Amino acid sequence: MTTYAAPVKDMQFVLNDVLQISKYSNLPGFSEATDDVVEAILEEGAKLAANVLHPLNHIGDEEGCTRHDDASVTTPTGFKDAYKTFSEGGWQGLSFDPAYGGQGLPYILSIAVNEMVSSANMAFGMYPGLAMGAALAIHAHGDDAQKQTYLPKMVTGEWGGTMNLTEPHCGTDLGLLRTKAVPQPDGSYKISGQKIWISAGEHDLTDNIIHLVLARIEGAPEGVKGISLFVAPKFLVNEDGSLGARNGVQCGGLESKMGIHGNATCVMNYDEATGWLIGEENKGLKAMFTMMNEARLGVAVQGLAISEVAYQNASEFARDRVQGRSLTGPKAPDKAADPIIVHPDVRRMLMDQRATIEGGRAWMYWSALQADMHHKSEDEETRVRADDILGLMTPVLKAYLTEKGFWHASTAQQVLGGSGYTAEWGLEQFVRDARIAMIYEGTNGVQALDLVGRKLPKDGGRAIMAFFAEIDAFVNDNQGNEELKPYLDGLDAAKADVQEATQWFMANAMQNPDNAGAGSMDYLHMVALLCLAHGWAQLAKAALERKAAGDADDFFANKLITGRYFLERILPDVKAHLAKLKAGADSMMALPAEAF
Amino acid sequence: MTTYAAPVKDMQFVLNDVLQISKYSNLPGFSEATDDVVEAILEEGAKLAANVLHPLNHIGDEEGCTRHDDASVTTPTGFKDAYKTFSEGGWQGLSFDPAYGGQGLPYILSIAVNEMVSSANMAFGMYPGLAMGAALAIHAHGDDAQKQTYLPKMVTGEWGGTMNLTEPHCGTDLGLLRTKAVPQPDGSYKISGQKIWISAGEHDLTDNIIHLVLARIEGAPEGVKGISLFVAPKFLVNEDGSLGARNGVQCGGLESKMGIHGNATCVMNYDEATGWLIGEENKGLKAMFTMMNEARLGVAVQGLAISEVAYQNASEFARDRVQGRSLTGPKAPDKAADPIIVHPDVRRMLMDQRATIEGGRAWMYWSALQADMHHKSEDEETRVRADDILGLMTPVLKAYLTEKGFWHASTAQQVLGGSGYTAEWGLEQFVRDARIAMIYEGTNGVQALDLVGRKLPKDGGRAIMAFFAEIDAFVNDNQGNEELKPYLDGLDAAKADVQEATQWFMANAMQNPDNAGAGSMDYLHMVALLCLAHGWAQLAKAALERKAAGDADDFFANKLITGRYFLERILPDVKAHLAKLKAGADSMMALPAEAF
Repeated sequence: MTTYAAPVKDMQFVLNDVLQISKYSNLPGFSEATDDVVEAILEEGAKLAANVLHPLNHIGDEEGCTRHDDASVTTPTGFKDAYKTFSEGGWQGLSFDPAYGGQGLPYILSIAVNEMVSSANMAFGMYPGLAMGAALAIHAHGDDAQKQTYLPKMVTGEWGGTMNLTEPHCGTDLGLLRTKAVPQPDGSYKISGQKIWISAGEHDLTDNIIHLVLARIEGAPEGVKGISLFVAPKFLVNEDGSLGARNGVQCGGLESKMGIHGNATCVMNYDEATGWLIGEENKGLKAMFTMMNEARLGVAVQGLAISEVAYQNASEFARDRVQGRSLTGPKAPDKAADPIIVHPDVRRMLMDQRATIEGGRAWMYWSALQADMHHKSEDEETRVRADDILGLMTPVLKAYLTEKGFWHASTAQQVLGGSGYTAEWGLEQFVRDARIAMIYEGTNGVQALDLVGRKLPKDGGRAIMAFFAEIDAFVNDNQGNEELKPYLDGLDAAKADVQEATQWFMANAMQNPDNAGAGSMDYLHMVALLCLAHGWAQLAKAALERKAAGDADDFFANKLITGRYFLERILPDVKAHLAKLKAGADSMMALPAEAF
Repeated sequence: MTTYAAPVKDMQFVLNDVLQISKYSNLPGFSEATDDVVEAILEEGAKLAANVLHPLNHIGDEEGCTRHDDASVTTPTGFKDAYKTFSEGGWQGLSFDPAYGGQGLPYILSIAVNEMVSSANMAFGMYPGLAMGAALAIHAHGDDAQKQTYLPKMVTGEWGGTMNLTEPHCGTDLGLLRTKAVPQPDGSYKISGQKIWISAGEHDLTDNIIHLVLARIEGAPEGVKGISLFVAPKFLVNEDGSLGARNGVQCGGLESKMGIHGNATCVMNYDEATGWLIGEENKGLKAMFTMMNEARLGVAVQGLAISEVAYQNASEFARDRVQGRSLTGPKAPDKAADPIIVHPDVRRMLMDQRATIEGGRAWMYWSALQADMHHKSEDEETRVRADDILGLMTPVLKAYLTEKGFWHASTAQQVLGGSGYTAEWGLEQFVRDARIAMIYEGTNGVQALDLVGRKLPKDGGRAIMAFFAEIDAFVNDNQGNEELKPYLDGLDAAKADVQEATQWFMANAMQNPDNAGAGSMDYLHMVALLCLAHGWAQLAKAALERKAAGDADDFFANKLITGRYFLERILPDVKAHLAKLKAGADSMMALPAEAF
């Protein structure tokens, strides 16, 4: 069966050496995040992940959730106790607003903890993850009374939360949604309709579940301009905060799905459920995007997290399993065969994972720091710039890290050979679990379109220019650092290719917008590789500094080897993507639909 | 639920127009394979696949196989009847030696039928597939009495067959195997040991199962030089051909695995089972490779087959599902939204699959034709050359087409969005089923090593040079054909890159063999892309000829669009692989094992 040990040292290296979060002590919450607080949080998180959550991962997969005749849902054995430990440990409110009981620590720390939770038990992590997304949307768009009613109990983890968007006939295209909301004299609404694929829609972990639901107010315009956001708790809340009547929303069934069996994916039936408007009428989509963007970052973390846990189990197997001899002569002559880690192609699989995980973590955490700066900086220019970059990064992180999460889980499975295909070894679960992350919260194709169609042209390309400027500044600041030169050269070359692709879009997408759509996924990969190159340049710089300071820990030398592997064996894909992108839409779109 | 319609027109185009199999009527069996016979076989095969086998695909996945207390195994509902239809239809002996009841038709035809069977129901197809591999090994290495005893009933499908290689501590490295064979006075052996992951090891489809088993004769040398091949039937066969006593080989358990649930993957316990030597003592590995090479081609076909059926279901969904509007304005203004096939990124996913499937089919069938020439040509030079090329192609076909089979199944799933993740739609089963093909019959990494370490240097590089010569001949023969020029240029450029990679190995692998291992998977992909380019050049040439002859069927124009897509959007990866390969082994191998 699988094991998981949170990569605390790697996380600390990124937080302390690479991003140097102590530099941000002027921001609220950061001054409390001293080195020892960070260390304590990561180490306690690691214990929770290894001792409480990961042991339930396989059980969750095997048992799945059960819906009963009364529409209640039971989570797998052990989930309820584990959730109690999680919420009582204060993990849910780690970076939430202290005004509602949160600890107000940096968001970047909660991302590190999320990584651990998702590595240990992705299906479990979705329960608090969805609740946090709902809480953030209420925090951003709810009125004071709503915040006071729901947030304190959501922040402690006593109450859960969900987001209800998808209907049978519409997922990506929410303009088609039909769930309706009828205004009542008391200011509430009666909500009716069916929502599907609602993660954590019903379960036995919390006393109440706060559903956020998109619906159309009677008489509202068609399309996305007539959508409003509502809060509809499972149990109505009395004025004194106690639970009142059961609301008219029920789990109509559980989806039978490929993975994340431990999470209840529900059909939710709204039958005149009482709900209250969140934010303005017909502005529901905008409010929902607060949750969605948060959720997309959470899904990106899932991709990274599954890569990490799969990699850990594959490398453990590769060090233990003996089979065949090294091409350069026996490495374990005392044994019947060498451990398979001596075989270059096994190394290739492990190094591909490792280089993407380590670079990806630097990139993910750096992006999380933008979120902190956006929300907390007192300087407006900094806030805007951080928001621009985070907006640009969100679809790229989501699509790239989840694609790699799936591929790495599969690669890890491949390292195990036949054992990887059996349920007993647990790797195949990672593959099945990881697969959903490429789909939900907007498929990866939708992310690519968001990048190219929305984030790139927004404000005259301000975001991508800010990112290019960031890279230029890094390259300029480190000119003359000979050991860093391969990274700077790699960054420069990749940036030039991304610029060329951007210019190609500018020249060709106006006359035919399909030229942008056709290149969107290649462009997304190019930006992702540039971001990884940026992450690796930062990692290498920090590792070189530690070495120069006399730190003899192999950890730093190993970072530089892995970084070199990234430059040599992963970054070259940028050029192939550029060549494909510049082919344009013609051959992609020419076939008549009926020819497929 | 999924559907499948065999791509008969595509298959006929490859067989008749591209490969022009009628030109080979001098070879045994080919003269019988007239156009109308080929058409009849493909159409009957298509009916079998669509009406008998595919309807059982999902049932097979849901039910799986059941082992009973008496060690017997029951296949899923309907498999037994379907198998009866399959064997009574004479499908098992389609291309088998007529001396043992086969129809002696070209192997290339049986590959086309295999593709249909594997698309329709991969788990089902493994029962006759494994039996055919065993029959071919007995045919190649058994003595006359053994052939007479086993082959006629295996060829009708009355008896099944298996290959028993893997043991708990050894899969790839068969030199470690421990199953022992003790010689008996009557010339038989008593075989004892445990084999695992034995596909179709025990089931209720046939009256008898003929196991081929690798074991070590008492006193034989250690390692691969002491391995012999034995035949050990489930029921001993009396002199008159009737079934005798139950042999001492039993299914000890079924593996719980990610997919192919309809196939019984067995632990097989040999407890003094009676077996007879096949071929020479201690030459078992060589004999097993007859089966293995055959099996690897069969697995390559599985990769292609899963790509095809997944693609069909994804494209059907993409034409039906409406969601969002085209970037270039509404295409279905009468509907609430456009079918998602208008979106470039959905097209990209479908075209990636389609271009690889069509090019891959041309390549696969062309390789199968080499097998026919190898076995049947009267000209020794032709036989040797065909065997060289087939030997070179086998690992490349196996690894590339199975990797793409998995990736395409996942891509097809992606086209369906959330529906793709649910069991109800069936796409996720394709992903789980396809995954095994990258692992069994030698993992894809082992294929890459076979290519670079064995097939490439063998006979001074004769095989790759023969393949290059084939490409040069094609390019030269078609000089001046302006419409074909992009294909010829693509072929030439890809060939030059593969040559450069080959030379890099020659210059760098001697000093450090890990340089070959480190580049083996990139090299395999480069060769595969060159083969696809070769396949596409042949497809395009045939399509242009049909168009020039006045055939106005869109089929031919569509081939050329898809071919152009291949050149523009898939072939560019060759250069990225070359760049990675030339990075060598250093950064891949530098980390100490304990750092992983």
